[in-house]
Amino acid sequence: MSSSLGTLFKISTFGESHCAAVGVVVDGVPPRMELQASDIQVQLDRRRPGQSKLSTDRDEADQVEILSGTENGLTLGSPIGLLVRNKDQRPQDYGSMSQIPRPSHADLTYRQKYGIHASSGGGRSSARETIGRVAAGAIAEKYLAQEFGIEIVAWVSSVGDVSSKNVDHATVSREQVDANEVRCPDQSAAPQMVDEILAARADKDSIGGVLTCVCRNLPAGLGEPAFDRLEARLAHAMLSIPATKGFEIGSGFDGAKMRGSAHNDPYCFKDGRVGTLTNRSGGVQGGISNAENVYFKVAFKPPATIGQAQKTVDYQGEEATLEAKGRHDPCVVPRAVPIVEAMAALVIADLTLIQKMRQPL
Amino acid sequence: MSSSLGTLFKISTFGESHCAAVGVVVDGVPPRMELQASDIQVQLDRRRPGQSKLSTDRDEADQVEILSGTENGLTLGSPIGLLVRNKDQRPQDYGSMSQIPRPSHADLTYRQKYGIHASSGGGRSSARETIGRVAAGAIAEKYLAQEFGIEIVAWVSSVGDVSSKNVDHATVSREQVDANEVRCPDQSAAPQMVDEILAARADKDSIGGVLTCVCRNLPAGLGEPAFDRLEARLAHAMLSIPATKGFEIGSGFDGAKMRGSAHNDPYCFKDGRVGTLTNRSGGVQGGISNAENVYFKVAFKPPATIGQAQKTVDYQGEEATLEAKGRHDPCVVPRAVPIVEAMAALVIADLTLIQKMRQPL
Amino acid sequence: MSSSLGTLFKISTFGESHCAAVGVVVDGVPPRMELQASDIQVQLDRRRPGQSKLSTDRDEADQVEILSGTENGLTLGSPIGLLVRNKDQRPQDYGSMSQIPRPSHADLTYRQKYGIHASSGGGRSSARETIGRVAAGAIAEKYLAQEFGIEIVAWVSSVGDVSSKNVDHATVSREQVDANEVRCPDQSAAPQMVDEILAARADKDSIGGVLTCVCRNLPAGLGEPAFDRLEARLAHAMLSIPATKGFEIGSGFDGAKMRGSAHNDPYCFKDGRVGTLTNRSGGVQGGISNAENVYFKVAFKPPATIGQAQKTVDYQGEEATLEAKGRHDPCVVPRAVPIVEAMAALVIADLTLIQKMRQPL
Amino acid sequence: MSSSLGTLFKISTFGESHCAAVGVVVDGVPPRMELQASDIQVQLDRRRPGQSKLSTDRDEADQVEILSGTENGLTLGSPIGLLVRNKDQRPQDYGSMSQIPRPSHADLTYRQKYGIHASSGGGRSSARETIGRVAAGAIAEKYLAQEFGIEIVAWVSSVGDVSSKNVDHATVSREQVDANEVRCPDQSAAPQMVDEILAARADKDSIGGVLTCVCRNLPAGLGEPAFDRLEARLAHAMLSIPATKGFEIGSGFDGAKMRGSAHNDPYCFKDGRVGTLTNRSGGVQGGISNAENVYFKVAFKPPATIGQAQKTVDYQGEEATLEAKGRHDPCVVPRAVPIVEAMAALVIADLTLIQKMRQPL
Repeated sequence: MSSSLGTLFKISTFGESHCAAVGVVVDGVPPRMELQASDIQVQLDRRRPGQSKLSTDRDEADQVEILSGTENGLTLGSPIGLLVRNKDQRPQDYGSMSQIPRPSHADLTYRQKYGIHASSGGGRSSARETIGRVAAGAIAEKYLAQEFGIEIVAWVSSVGDVSSKNVDHATVSREQVDANEVRCPDQSAAPQMVDEILAARADKDSIGGVLTCVCRNLPAGLGEPAFDRLEARLAHAMLSIPATKGFEIGSGFDGAKMRGSAHNDPYCFKDGRVGTLTNRSGGVQGGISNAENVYFKVAFKPPATIGQAQKTVDYQGEEATLEAKGRHDPCVVPRAVPIVEAMAALVIADLTLIQKMRQPL
Repeated sequence: MSSSLGTLFKISTFGESHCAAVGVVVDGVPPRMELQASDIQVQLDRRRPGQSKLSTDRDEADQVEILSGTENGLTLGSPIGLLVRNKDQRPQDYGSMSQIPRPSHADLTYRQKYGIHASSGGGRSSARETIGRVAAGAIAEKYLAQEFGIEIVAWVSSVGDVSSKNVDHATVSREQVDANEVRCPDQSAAPQMVDEILAARADKDSIGGVLTCVCRNLPAGLGEPAFDRLEARLAHAMLSIPATKGFEIGSGFDGAKMRGSAHNDPYCFKDGRVGTLTNRSGGVQGGISNAENVYFKVAFKPPATIGQAQKTVDYQGEEATLEAKGRHDPCVVPRAVPIVEAMAALVIADLTLIQKMRQPL
Repeated sequence: MSSSLGTLFKISTFGESHCAAVGVVVDGVPPRMELQASDIQVQLDRRRPGQSKLSTDRDEADQVEILSGTENGLTLGSPIGLLVRNKDQRPQDYGSMSQIPRPSHADLTYRQKYGIHASSGGGRSSARETIGRVAAGAIAEKYLAQEFGIEIVAWVSSVGDVSSKNVDHATVSREQVDANEVRCPDQSAAPQMVDEILAARADKDSIGGVLTCVCRNLPAGLGEPAFDRLEARLAHAMLSIPATKGFEIGSGFDGAKMRGSAHNDPYCFKDGRVGTLTNRSGGVQGGISNAENVYFKVAFKPPATIGQAQKTVDYQGEEATLEAKGRHDPCVVPRAVPIVEAMAALVIADLTLIQKMRQPL
Repeated sequence: MSSSLGTLFKISTFGESHCAAVGVVVDGVPPRMELQASDIQVQLDRRRPGQSKLSTDRDEADQVEILSGTENGLTLGSPIGLLVRNKDQRPQDYGSMSQIPRPSHADLTYRQKYGIHASSGGGRSSARETIGRVAAGAIAEKYLAQEFGIEIVAWVSSVGDVSSKNVDHATVSREQVDANEVRCPDQSAAPQMVDEILAARADKDSIGGVLTCVCRNLPAGLGEPAFDRLEARLAHAMLSIPATKGFEIGSGFDGAKMRGSAHNDPYCFKDGRVGTLTNRSGGVQGGISNAENVYFKVAFKPPATIGQAQKTVDYQGEEATLEAKGRHDPCVVPRAVPIVEAMAALVIADLTLIQKMRQPL
């Protein structure tokens, strides 16, 4: 019952890893906006596996089809149905896992919740579920860019113990992010991240990482106290992405170590408005955007499916050893970049439409 | 439009810092449950200021009145209205701040969003808004304890640079938490935390901190993929609390540094069921509870209102110096303990009622 | 879980007939609007019993208190809490009914649903629940009048077999409606309606009736296809009022007897815009307002509680005779006028705020 | 933003009359339920045009494809995506209407609302939008039949001035309804209804009608006071169907003419429970089902698109004459039968899942 997200800009996703198709219905898209499948495809292409040596070699072409909601390249204001066929179905790869729940995967909990579980792959918990999010997010992004000039850029800020430095929130671009296969715009850290991932793969292991995302040019006033504060909605959206374990806005957990005199962002006059000298708040005060850059971090655990033998038990509680076959990413964070961007765009688009209720009609 | 939270167990809060009253309507409370005002008052008493030397000396008695939804001490299944009068109104304390937005507070953003702002105190962004949450959460907690034996315990796990150690998730109790005024069950760390807070106060400054919360005895199966995953709902609820900057479930950001072979929680047979040997997942897999302890951390920034002089600008952009008078907590985390517990209880109660839809009627 | 209504302009009501208070939280009220308790009280006064000889002589003063959401007579944009104390509690009047469910009342079904039922009066199904609706509706109305000049007028269009005629939708006013105690602006039909009601009362009986409501000056474009069509939302709101049995928009059931050539509303040019010559559509086409008057009818059954002896069975299925004591209205429609107006205002205010999402910010 | 309906059993429809496809995402379907496309196709076949001489001769095969949410013929508990391709696209039939808004159709209001309108056919206001509803409703129906033995049967109870009589709510079946092309189980009224429709067609005109629907074997306790009363949710659902103008539950508008002594349904002991002797309430008391048959009526206006010349104005307000070409049903009520059944099933399924929250887990 929770495959929907949003109040006015609202998405409903569907699809499992090995069913006929995955997709999304996007309701609340502003009318009279130019929209082509290619606007959406570009982010799907950044999401799909097989883009680099860091990823699985599964070739998921993931061509999106716009089913409804546009005519002659313009949105009608009606719901936009988006469809991506599942072409590469190889359920047999997963056969050996059917009696043993994969540790730290969703096999057991889905069975506990629903009394049934898709027999192969991740079913609904598969990363393929995020295709609908990315597709919908691309529409949200286009709207935000057109109406406000909003820019959303996410990047890999750490892999294992390797962290990026010197990324300028004011200027970092997708081109810089995509300049290397690990999607880290710090060109000195990137090769070390690649090494971390390749080392994990060589060990039939996986490794975690962190994404940072910056959203520029948000108007002041977005976010609805008390429960739809901008950071609350972002946290919700980010923790709904598979494999996420943490979220920080602005100063995050480091801010919890600080004193107020050092943490507060003093006001100043700049660009013709009252702004802040520093931005430890992360662009949000009292749950409402203040026109500074919004930035946040999202922690991703190492993928649960690994090739190494794992001692565990089967569904009956009998001891067993699991060795995943299949093809699995040793690290999800490079491919998670467009997912994080999409979720941010969806949240901001929704809060933008909501804030319009306070304007004269 | 966002003062409501929840799908089936649903709350709607109201009230600013200096209006007539704050309160909440709680809809979806199971019928035929024993409920007295005293069940609620106990958590409000833990939340109110003036409990110790660490807190402001404002005396907010915060007596709750049950307005509706019960008869003869039993819930009727109808919405429960809860009211707490604002007794201690001293708007004059805030008068000096009316021309200067407090740095890192919500004064400016509320004005940007609504074109108007409560003239004194935090208005809707005040910590008093959390009274309704705590009151509603106490009802949720009582329900969860009765039907499932669920226990929710939060504590202060760090203040500034001082962190707790050796807190046993399996046994930590509210009695242990409340045994000292900083609400840290690690009795060796607690005095250092107190010192940190008193030092900040002495400097007319404030300091941040982190809460940890454990939820025991959750049944497996709670959480609704894709967007109402248990951790997503918890993250949403926690980041909706004023002054929060981060959220971690299970291994959190540390998990992002690990490899899968070290991070995965192998299954074992224990207590007559398939469980996990370790719990880096934090009791959640694929967004669904797995019957292990759910635990998470919440980062709180240092309170924005400090007595030190701050160089800033006024609403017109003119340079100004702000010195807050009023009475303000130098650190919010001890008083945030019942708020975090309440928000956790509200999320879990809602997901519990939702999961019941999959049972036979 | 269903004590909330609305998406952006959202209310949450609480309260039973004999608890401490009834009330409502109104979220989404536009900021910077002048609002006093007296703006609300005027409609509560039209709703309360004891206004005329047609009604019960219970004296429910029903004084509303604004608990939150305003300062210095202006709305803040935060939720407005409204409270009305239950002063006239006489549960003993209902004592004789505690073993026998009242026919066509909610006693049995509440017990079936919740396993418990308020021991006296209607509990949550009482007409007192509508106080919160009327109070919230008065705020919605004020907003709609200010921003759009929208006028909402309901009246009694039939009582039993007596129907009004000659009510001009373009000009009918609340003053005309309130000019007689039955609230029928057709001054020739009104006395006959009074006679119908008094005759029913003399027989210890009750009688049903119909309200008509017209909403003038709605902008074109309100209503959200497919499921929040304006008439769908109005029907929902009206059928949520206790004792309602039917709803018609525009031509209603009579329209179902007609041919398209006679039913269609041809377009014409008037008032500087494309409008319709006739208005059998009731101001709505394809679920969206077209700037013509919106009008609809609501059928109310005769009140279930009557003084006449009724042969029935008790909760155990044993034969029994019920004679209601208490004080009960023989006809609810005169007092239902402000309730219908309130529900219409709430629906229109919500759809108005939603439509604003399609404006530039 | 309103293409979704339901709280736990939730649908999101998409699609216009001439886009690539129409469809629906159905979330909240209970897991482990047998489901094949053929379960859905049967109701789509009853909805599609071209079934009889009473309908347009457009051949819309409307083959449904299940995209997700099932495996090996069993539901997984995840959202079910359903797709129907639009095969018969002939936008040119509508070309002549592009400068003249069709009277009593949605052309003008869509343009007023969205600033754009699908250039041909009804766009989102087309009857093709109901395909998603019927498909989703078929799943809801199957669930309700399996778990509760609930039966939902709708039929044509009037066309123009011709009304059915003698339809037994306790026994009427879909077989009886489908025994004639007008879908009226009163075999003496049916031929007269057919004549009415054929006469309207011969005159290049259209005609309205009324459907009655009965829902049998509902458990007591469904419906959520105050705003999700069963009849309120049904009214909402029915008035969301294109071309509807009215709704009655139980005695409806006739009940408004009655006295309470005649209208009340006395209780009796029957079938081992307390039931009612009569059923003017329509199976609902206080908004909650009482285990008697739920029945209601829905009024449909005559279709707006007629072949007769209509004097009207164009979008610029210039006088014009409109003669619709295309192929249009002279009467929608026979084809509306599965739509009404679907909407009823969707409402009841949702309220059923919600009521489960009051059961022990």
